[in-house]
Amino acid sequence: MIAQMVQELAMAARPAARSLAVVSSEIKDRALTAMADMLWSGRAAILSANALDLADAKAERHPPAFLDRLALDEIRVEKMVAGVRHVAGLPDPVGEITGMWRRPNGLLIGRMRVPLGVIGVIYEARPGVTADAAALCLKSGNAVILKGGREAIRSNRVISGLLAEAAAAAGLPKGCVGFIDSVDREAVAHLLSLTGLVDLIIPRGGEELIRTVQQTSAIPVLAHEKGLCHIYVDDGADLTMAEEIAFNAKVERPGVCNAMETLLVHQRVAPDFLPAAIRRLRESNVEVRGCPRTQALIPDVAAATEADWDTEYLDLILSVKVVSSFDEAVAHIAEHGSGLAETIVTADHARAMRFLREVDAGAVLVNASTRFTDGGEFGMGAEMGISTQKLHARGPVGLTELTCQKFIVLGDGQVRDSRK
Amino acid sequence: MIAQMVQELAMAARPAARSLAVVSSEIKDRALTAMADMLWSGRAAILSANALDLADAKAERHPPAFLDRLALDEIRVEKMVAGVRHVAGLPDPVGEITGMWRRPNGLLIGRMRVPLGVIGVIYEARPGVTADAAALCLKSGNAVILKGGREAIRSNRVISGLLAEAAAAAGLPKGCVGFIDSVDREAVAHLLSLTGLVDLIIPRGGEELIRTVQQTSAIPVLAHEKGLCHIYVDDGADLTMAEEIAFNAKVERPGVCNAMETLLVHQRVAPDFLPAAIRRLRESNVEVRGCPRTQALIPDVAAATEADWDTEYLDLILSVKVVSSFDEAVAHIAEHGSGLAETIVTADHARAMRFLREVDAGAVLVNASTRFTDGGEFGMGAEMGISTQKLHARGPVGLTELTCQKFIVLGDGQVRDSRK
Repeated sequence: MIAQMVQELAMAARPAARSLAVVSSEIKDRALTAMADMLWSGRAAILSANALDLADAKAERHPPAFLDRLALDEIRVEKMVAGVRHVAGLPDPVGEITGMWRRPNGLLIGRMRVPLGVIGVIYEARPGVTADAAALCLKSGNAVILKGGREAIRSNRVISGLLAEAAAAAGLPKGCVGFIDSVDREAVAHLLSLTGLVDLIIPRGGEELIRTVQQTSAIPVLAHEKGLCHIYVDDGADLTMAEEIAFNAKVERPGVCNAMETLLVHQRVAPDFLPAAIRRLRESNVEVRGCPRTQALIPDVAAATEADWDTEYLDLILSVKVVSSFDEAVAHIAEHGSGLAETIVTADHARAMRFLREVDAGAVLVNASTRFTDGGEFGMGAEMGISTQKLHARGPVGLTELTCQKFIVLGDGQVRDSRK
Repeated sequence: MIAQMVQELAMAARPAARSLAVVSSEIKDRALTAMADMLWSGRAAILSANALDLADAKAERHPPAFLDRLALDEIRVEKMVAGVRHVAGLPDPVGEITGMWRRPNGLLIGRMRVPLGVIGVIYEARPGVTADAAALCLKSGNAVILKGGREAIRSNRVISGLLAEAAAAAGLPKGCVGFIDSVDREAVAHLLSLTGLVDLIIPRGGEELIRTVQQTSAIPVLAHEKGLCHIYVDDGADLTMAEEIAFNAKVERPGVCNAMETLLVHQRVAPDFLPAAIRRLRESNVEVRGCPRTQALIPDVAAATEADWDTEYLDLILSVKVVSSFDEAVAHIAEHGSGLAETIVTADHARAMRFLREVDAGAVLVNASTRFTDGGEFGMGAEMGISTQKLHARGPVGLTELTCQKFIVLGDGQVRDSRK
């Protein structure tokens, strides 16, 4: 039953994707604007569905942070609507040809950017993802199949229904916004098995969701696993700059993936840098856990355990390590980093260049807070998340990353002679 | 036992990849040249190992085509050596920065091309793949773990041994060329389970190998599934050009993936085009299977079954279908194409442009033989195969496609204020 429903959504999404791939930017943008309008005019229905979801979630005694992610109010709906309008205003990546070259035989060869096809988005409690994911997929010419968390089912049903209705009325192909209207846990497994019908799966949520999807999907997955970001304060760094960057990366919004979790400090600057920096962090309620050399400088710092170096706190907790050299810092990052974002604070050009080359992460930063690792901050417009993978897309996943490139070849009758 | 051996190769490849990522092009090229020299000076050992492999394969009664793929002689070793030298001469994609942009806050943001890390290559009888795959992986800064077919184990052992020895002597990190010296079928399963140690798996071989790898791998796979290529002869096409292209795409080398398997012809040109074209193909021993409208024009053509439209013959067999319209041709390709290469022969500019946009394949060609779909012919140098996937790389997989891009960010102390 549920398998059939998911299969039918995908079978409808497939031809929709084929049509959508060649829909003009103008029509897509008009549809996105209509979708934004429809969400806003349907806000009463969204909010009352959300109130029912929220009441159930409270009855199920979900923690406050969960309830906060689930809850909508008029301001949040307004943000959701603004998000869809923002995507409508972004440049359309589809059809772009990134240069062509002429071969000796006269063939003109180049690459053209095209949509991926059908994208399945699997997420958890935030109903805002429904509008956000649909807008990004449609704008990049992809059909989307949405599967939200069971606690938000009523909210998502109303939101996706409004989106699909507006999209169809604006001339987008029927089936381009699919919604898995089920709380059956089997639904996800069915979606992940639809090789050939679904081209990409994007899981958005906690580590457990991501891992399950990665392990069970027969379809390629684009995922953001976790964000364990380091800031390395190099020997000779501007210590005021280093303190500002470290403070910002830890405190400004500790619950997000691009916040700093571990601070690495070169031994030569540690005595001048750490006492003041740690005092300031503690004044903002950051709990500090340090290596023995950190403890030697600030005796009342708790000891960091081996597990700390691998923990994404997503909280006001920081592990601190004094390193003997640039190489030790880079090796620590290679061993413990999650490949999301890594910063060096340095005044030395050669080491800045080495850090850029040697550190393997979606974003490698010099003298800037890891917090900038974000599609909007990078100037890519809205993002679907931040990929910690190496294949296809690393770092912020914007509209361009939801497309691929095919080769195009223009000839005037060329045939091949492979003996030549 | 075997699990441990594979694991150890990967554990050695991991740090080797980290070092190799920052080795200069000069050293890599010198190492590749040394590897080529070493293969050539070791040719006697290669050929005697190959003679033993071949004798066993004959005793096991493998078909002649298989024995031909397995067999080496001095000319083939010379070709293998020339292939490695060719890769040494190609431009190094690593380190390339494809433009940087400045954000309003002064951050400079761009993308830098970096190696993927550790690549596992799984292949079948051809011992030449050993040298070829190793050269491409090393040049693109990746460590490689090679797993060839059991029938070629002695040949591959000698070749990979020579390659690893020369690479180490030339200063490449130890462990960067790993070879799974085992005929145990479990070896592949172990390799495919090494998430976190191996970054990419490339299977090179028949459909069955590819499918098994895709279904069982926990690691991302870059694969060429099959090549079911169409040529569509449009209404108003230059029929002489169409015949040359169709003949070339079917006959020049029928056993390769970019050969044509199905010819689609617009009904208006079919009476003028098909009789002569089919006569010429038959004169070159092509067996033609046609739709009813093809049979109406050339009565002694056998009937194509539904299965024919989905069959990659890799042989002198061709299925022919007369279509009523451009749209029917595009729909047929969408349903039956494998996403490798598709050609339109047309004189109409608007339909050429529509074909380029609407047909979804790694390469879409206008007025040129599908046979050009090849890294060398596209001017990309040597290739690792042709990807029929959409994620990461479509079409020929050259050195660039064996790398990824990370973001680099250059600041001078920027911190983020997310309330803004």
